[in-house]
Amino acid sequence: MKRIVVILSGGMDSAVLLHKHLDEGDAVRAIAIDYGQRHRHELLFARLQAQVNAIGRVPFHVADLSGLRDILPGSSQTDDKIPVPKGHYTEASMKATVVPNRNMILLSVAIGHAVAFRYDAVSYAAHSGDHAIYPDCREEFIEALSKAAALCDWHPVQILRPFVNLTKADLVIKGTSLGVRFDQTYSCYEGGPVHCGTCGTCFERREAFSIAGIQDPTEYMDKRPFSKVLEEQAKKA
Amino acid sequence: MKRIVVILSGGMDSAVLLHKHLDEGDAVRAIAIDYGQRHRHELLFARLQAQVNAIGRVPFHVADLSGLRDILPGSSQTDDKIPVPKGHYTEASMKATVVPNRNMILLSVAIGHAVAFRYDAVSYAAHSGDHAIYPDCREEFIEALSKAAALCDWHPVQILRPFVNLTKADLVIKGTSLGVRFDQTYSCYEGGPVHCGTCGTCFERREAFSIAGIQDPTEYMDKRPFSKVLEEQAKKA
Repeated sequence: MKRIVVILSGGMDSAVLLHKHLDEGDAVRAIAIDYGQRHRHELLFARLQAQVNAIGRVPFHVADLSGLRDILPGSSQTDDKIPVPKGHYTEASMKATVVPNRNMILLSVAIGHAVAFRYDAVSYAAHSGDHAIYPDCREEFIEALSKAAALCDWHPVQILRPFVNLTKADLVIKGTSLGVRFDQTYSCYEGGPVHCGTCGTCFERREAFSIAGIQDPTEYMDKRPFSKVLEEQAKKA
Repeated sequence: MKRIVVILSGGMDSAVLLHKHLDEGDAVRAIAIDYGQRHRHELLFARLQAQVNAIGRVPFHVADLSGLRDILPGSSQTDDKIPVPKGHYTEASMKATVVPNRNMILLSVAIGHAVAFRYDAVSYAAHSGDHAIYPDCREEFIEALSKAAALCDWHPVQILRPFVNLTKADLVIKGTSLGVRFDQTYSCYEGGPVHCGTCGTCFERREAFSIAGIQDPTEYMDKRPFSKVLEEQAKKA
């Protein structure tokens, strides 16, 4: 049994991560971070995952760092003037969603939480779809940060990324077998009460269920079947 | 000319750092961080340094991360129930002031700010008195974090610590020659409107002026001359 701080976003991947660690018998604390994201609606779902679906087993905190919004401009995630990209991500549209140095900030806060409670590790749900484009998802970045995490205090902290070789579709399959309530997760970068179904992140969500061959329980504003959406996008391209 | 994000605390060391970079003709943005510190009174002095003493030359932001207080317990700096150590720091009393992973958190936020504005580097005022005890002031920690900062984005950011081989007394001398208004800086960990004069940080401040042989312009609650305070502490020990 390890003592693990799980970073929850409210999305699918981190919900699967939480259930994986609980399933393996780890002692888990969960943390979610309000960094001023447009889609902070997701934080409700982080709480749902930690405090309803894993009831009583997971101490949970939301770190209110919403002041970051003022000092990290330039991303569609934190700046209402920048539109959220639609459809399949491209390199350019993914770049528009980057919050400067977000991963280092989230990890450093989670590492601090682990140090404060003498936990062994911080685990987060990076998967193989993430690390191609974002520099702070790449192996060499995480290696350097892991070294810093081992040295930051008298109490060393590990960084775990158990899903780094899995696709999002793999996570749908794994989560289904672990009983994850995907209907109680939230991905949409638009941040509305119902998933839009057409932003880059909704697109990835729908595609993951489609590839996994598992019924998507999500309610979308865009009611067309996903195959239809794909077809229309292919026509436009 | 470099483009530098200076981390200001409101204390003496970072005020000297700000003036050093301005003196060298660098383009400077300054950032201070409210991490829920008991002595957040210092943030007023960060603003004074950036927006009054260096008027018009330094864009300045306070990042409101005061929510960190809730998730990083265990330090006298963020937990009102833990008393602030008095007198000369010892290893044990310094440990009581440690905010878990504070340096990585502050640096990661400043690095994000540098990425957002395409600045070259983050500079902070670590000096030789810091790095003996705190793990996150040591060379190997900073090396690992510097590597991460160079890899976190398409735009690499350097971490600068130009004072790492200077003592606090050296900084008093340097600051005086640069015209730093030390009366408009704040160090006290008690966080009251006037420096207490007896906490570990006030002690270091008084000692630095005493060693530098420069008149200390600070108003302290404890009105005894510093030589007298030292004498009494020696008697107690």
